[in-house]
Amino acid sequence: MINFKTSPPEYKHWKLSIDGAVATLSMDVQEDATLAEGYKLKLNSYDLGVDIELADAIQRLRFEHPKVRVVILTSLKPRIFCAGANIYMLGTSSHAFKVNFCKFTNETRCGIEDDSFHSGRRYVAALNGTASGGGYELAIACDEIYLVDDGNSAVSLPEVPLLGVLPGTGGLTRLVDKRKVRRDRADVFSTLAEGLKGKRAKEWGLIDDTFPTSKFQERLNARVSELLSNNSARSNAEASGIKLNPLQVRDSGDRREYEYVSLTLNRDKRYADLTIRGPKQDVPSNPEQILEAGDRFWPLQAYRELDDVLLHLRVNEPEIGLVCLRTEGDLDAALNVDRTLTQHSDHWLVREIILNMARVLRRLDLTAKSFFAIVEPGSCFAGNLLELLLAADRTYMLNNPDDQPLIVVSTLNAGPLPMSNGLTRLESRFLASPENAQKVLSSTSPFDTEEAEEAGLITVAPDDLDWDDEIRLAIEERTSLSPDALTGMEASLRFAGPETMDTKIYGRLTAWQNWIFQRPNAVGERGALTNYGKPTQPQFDYKRT
Amino acid sequence: MINFKTSPPEYKHWKLSIDGAVATLSMDVQEDATLAEGYKLKLNSYDLGVDIELADAIQRLRFEHPKVRVVILTSLKPRIFCAGANIYMLGTSSHAFKVNFCKFTNETRCGIEDDSFHSGRRYVAALNGTASGGGYELAIACDEIYLVDDGNSAVSLPEVPLLGVLPGTGGLTRLVDKRKVRRDRADVFSTLAEGLKGKRAKEWGLIDDTFPTSKFQERLNARVSELLSNNSARSNAEASGIKLNPLQVRDSGDRREYEYVSLTLNRDKRYADLTIRGPKQDVPSNPEQILEAGDRFWPLQAYRELDDVLLHLRVNEPEIGLVCLRTEGDLDAALNVDRTLTQHSDHWLVREIILNMARVLRRLDLTAKSFFAIVEPGSCFAGNLLELLLAADRTYMLNNPDDQPLIVVSTLNAGPLPMSNGLTRLESRFLASPENAQKVLSSTSPFDTEEAEEAGLITVAPDDLDWDDEIRLAIEERTSLSPDALTGMEASLRFAGPETMDTKIYGRLTAWQNWIFQRPNAVGERGALTNYGKPTQPQFDYKRT
Repeated sequence: MINFKTSPPEYKHWKLSIDGAVATLSMDVQEDATLAEGYKLKLNSYDLGVDIELADAIQRLRFEHPKVRVVILTSLKPRIFCAGANIYMLGTSSHAFKVNFCKFTNETRCGIEDDSFHSGRRYVAALNGTASGGGYELAIACDEIYLVDDGNSAVSLPEVPLLGVLPGTGGLTRLVDKRKVRRDRADVFSTLAEGLKGKRAKEWGLIDDTFPTSKFQERLNARVSELLSNNSARSNAEASGIKLNPLQVRDSGDRREYEYVSLTLNRDKRYADLTIRGPKQDVPSNPEQILEAGDRFWPLQAYRELDDVLLHLRVNEPEIGLVCLRTEGDLDAALNVDRTLTQHSDHWLVREIILNMARVLRRLDLTAKSFFAIVEPGSCFAGNLLELLLAADRTYMLNNPDDQPLIVVSTLNAGPLPMSNGLTRLESRFLASPENAQKVLSSTSPFDTEEAEEAGLITVAPDDLDWDDEIRLAIEERTSLSPDALTGMEASLRFAGPETMDTKIYGRLTAWQNWIFQRPNAVGERGALTNYGKPTQPQFDYKRT
Repeated sequence: MINFKTSPPEYKHWKLSIDGAVATLSMDVQEDATLAEGYKLKLNSYDLGVDIELADAIQRLRFEHPKVRVVILTSLKPRIFCAGANIYMLGTSSHAFKVNFCKFTNETRCGIEDDSFHSGRRYVAALNGTASGGGYELAIACDEIYLVDDGNSAVSLPEVPLLGVLPGTGGLTRLVDKRKVRRDRADVFSTLAEGLKGKRAKEWGLIDDTFPTSKFQERLNARVSELLSNNSARSNAEASGIKLNPLQVRDSGDRREYEYVSLTLNRDKRYADLTIRGPKQDVPSNPEQILEAGDRFWPLQAYRELDDVLLHLRVNEPEIGLVCLRTEGDLDAALNVDRTLTQHSDHWLVREIILNMARVLRRLDLTAKSFFAIVEPGSCFAGNLLELLLAADRTYMLNNPDDQPLIVVSTLNAGPLPMSNGLTRLESRFLASPENAQKVLSSTSPFDTEEAEEAGLITVAPDDLDWDDEIRLAIEERTSLSPDALTGMEASLRFAGPETMDTKIYGRLTAWQNWIFQRPNAVGERGALTNYGKPTQPQFDYKRT
């Protein structure tokens, strides 16, 4: 079972050091500390274990080290920054694992950009050696890239020429969409196994600058000083962080119990029930109390737990095809939390808490499982938890006039928790009638089942007599369908409307990569990925599709 | 060899009838008139042959019947409009053919929307019977959809539940992006094999209205009259069309010769040389002369030939991985044509000619082959032909100070020939520096090699001594790479910047469909697509990816 829990003292592959407003994340991958058998992590290449630590470090910077305003990513290995995802790991992984590995690393890279964009921390890739493949993709997720000019070090995306696959961790998309490298140059660069060194790399916009070895540290320091004196970073100079303690979870095989989240696995029926419990009444209501509560504050703890359970479902429970999202709790208490968050959204910790909720919800949008929201009396689809209902592929809400469940909106449904496409989930839902989204948002009182149906918020409203059968049948039908067709269908229907760099990475780039990850030219017996490092040449079927 | 040449008297599957300003395209597929062995086209299901006729009919409406302002698509078969792509055809086709079949049908559907958007012709799907799968996808490409209410007829997208694949001819995308169906309803609809009948289909926005059998024709006629009296269609009431005569082509196996286009296949080296010859000096310069020249007018004939050769390369030459784009001719003559087109762009025929050029260039952007533009003395990359250079993945331009080739822009590079993403190719090229696009456009004099390189218009400028080796090596290198990785890479690098419904169809939706078309759950021995129509149940590996 893959575990996403880690912390700096446990890191095997990264060193996190903090010096005032500057954090340095140094990559020093231990070759033998792999997540699976059969490969060694040479040359700072990575597997999922390495990226779990990186994701953890970035998360901790945001919560534990609010004073940090510049983050330097660099390497402790000589002449190499990072050689990217380990090829032998990829070559020996199942298709499903490869895809989920790429998705997680993509989310980590997008997380860096989320921190930069929303919290103003500047990420600097200090390439003191070659960055190839996923190594350069990590660099390109940073705000600025500096490459040592030592006559040898280069940046490269050798996936196409060497491995017959794509730079699929955002590489191709960021090349032309973020750094806006001219497409013909991007074409040359992406087919050039050895990549480009400093001067040309700078000319083509692949890096921001290149410095000779003797001046590398000095010039880097100078740039970091500039960034620090620059006002673009939101200063939290006075703030002390809060500690992110390990999540407590009891796992009994078929159940996974956190404080606010429960997962029940119905493996024989290929679906899971995922319940999120809302906050209690006496939650903190101002920044001082929130700081005091720290990681026990409901919206932080509950969403950290939700994040963990989603990752668990993705990598450890591939045969679970459907997740029934349920909530429990008191609507007013949930709305109360949203009011507090909204009122104090300028406070650094509150901002980080909201941004984390948004990231977790996007993780859900991007999870290749079907989601049904199930609304019954006692449920708590209020405000931020209503986003779960809006993220679901369908919603079933019991229509029992004697005991009508209620759902209710808050200001958090109006913008702070956007999807990857930049829209709120209400906007995505009501593309045909934007006025409906406004109407829903202006309603401060809860919607009962009939009102929710009238407002277009739910899909099916079975009555008491039909409820059990209807839910059972819906689950049986869904889990009988082709899991691949569902994945493709959901990836299309969930992302109506505009596309952004993020959705292009998860849609266009990822879908092509997944296609290539199936092709004999990559993964067949003589495919380029399988063949990597062997004395034989790959053999291609040259038919173009 | 698949031939894309046809005309109404040759149609086997469609009847095109014109009554004043109304054209009716009636589908009446001949079961046995298939493009390949092994299947019958029952229930108005289609193969590529059926769609070639549809594409031809739409093209002819635009050029031969400018008076037509409303196009009705309907069926001559009782109780069925169209059952979509033939499943047995799909089940017995190679992966590459499936993908290219879907691409062509997508282009035909986008062509309907292009006609509607730019030329104002209204397309009405008159569903006098059930429209399922690709049948409904054809309907949803129309402006309006009317379904007969006969107690039986329905619209449906049964691909996911019945076949384990996607409604990949734009279906899922148009559902949520064009018709803006609520995503949870789209989810239900796309998993419901039997689909929805009139009342519910209307309520959900899947159709525009439903009429009882007895009133269907009357209500449809009334709606058509409304559309005719409505001014939104650009009236060409007085115009007579021009005839699109069959293209003349000599095919000798390794060469394909049209009047303005030559294709030389170097099959052992897996690349082709594609040469387009520019116009002569004495081309028509006003609408009267253009009407008189008809389909012999250079920009119409040359681009029709280019279109045909691109389709030929796609489906008949799958092992050709690289196309070297070359031009020959007189720069001034080419610019002269562009000036004429620009000056008279309000004339219906000139508008159609420009729109056709734009579609052909988009067909090139979407072709899964690498393109290198090769610029030598005597070439004619001027104005509209410069778009070929800008569409190419790379450009090689000879740098010979004694005989410098020249390239030159025209107003046609500034907007009338957009890519599927809505940008011009110059805008796409200069995303990082939009001012460069403006600078290039403002230059009325030609660019020699050094100026072109300085302006960022070309990729490599080898000198005389290196030229032959450099081109040879570039070709060898390109054609040695994994064709799948190149397809995915080009699909990412060519479409930087914004996405539109069209690019979502060709990017997100198509890439997922291609992935699914590789999966054992669809095409394995017990996959749903393979298994269709057999007494056995499909067997799925339920792992989600």
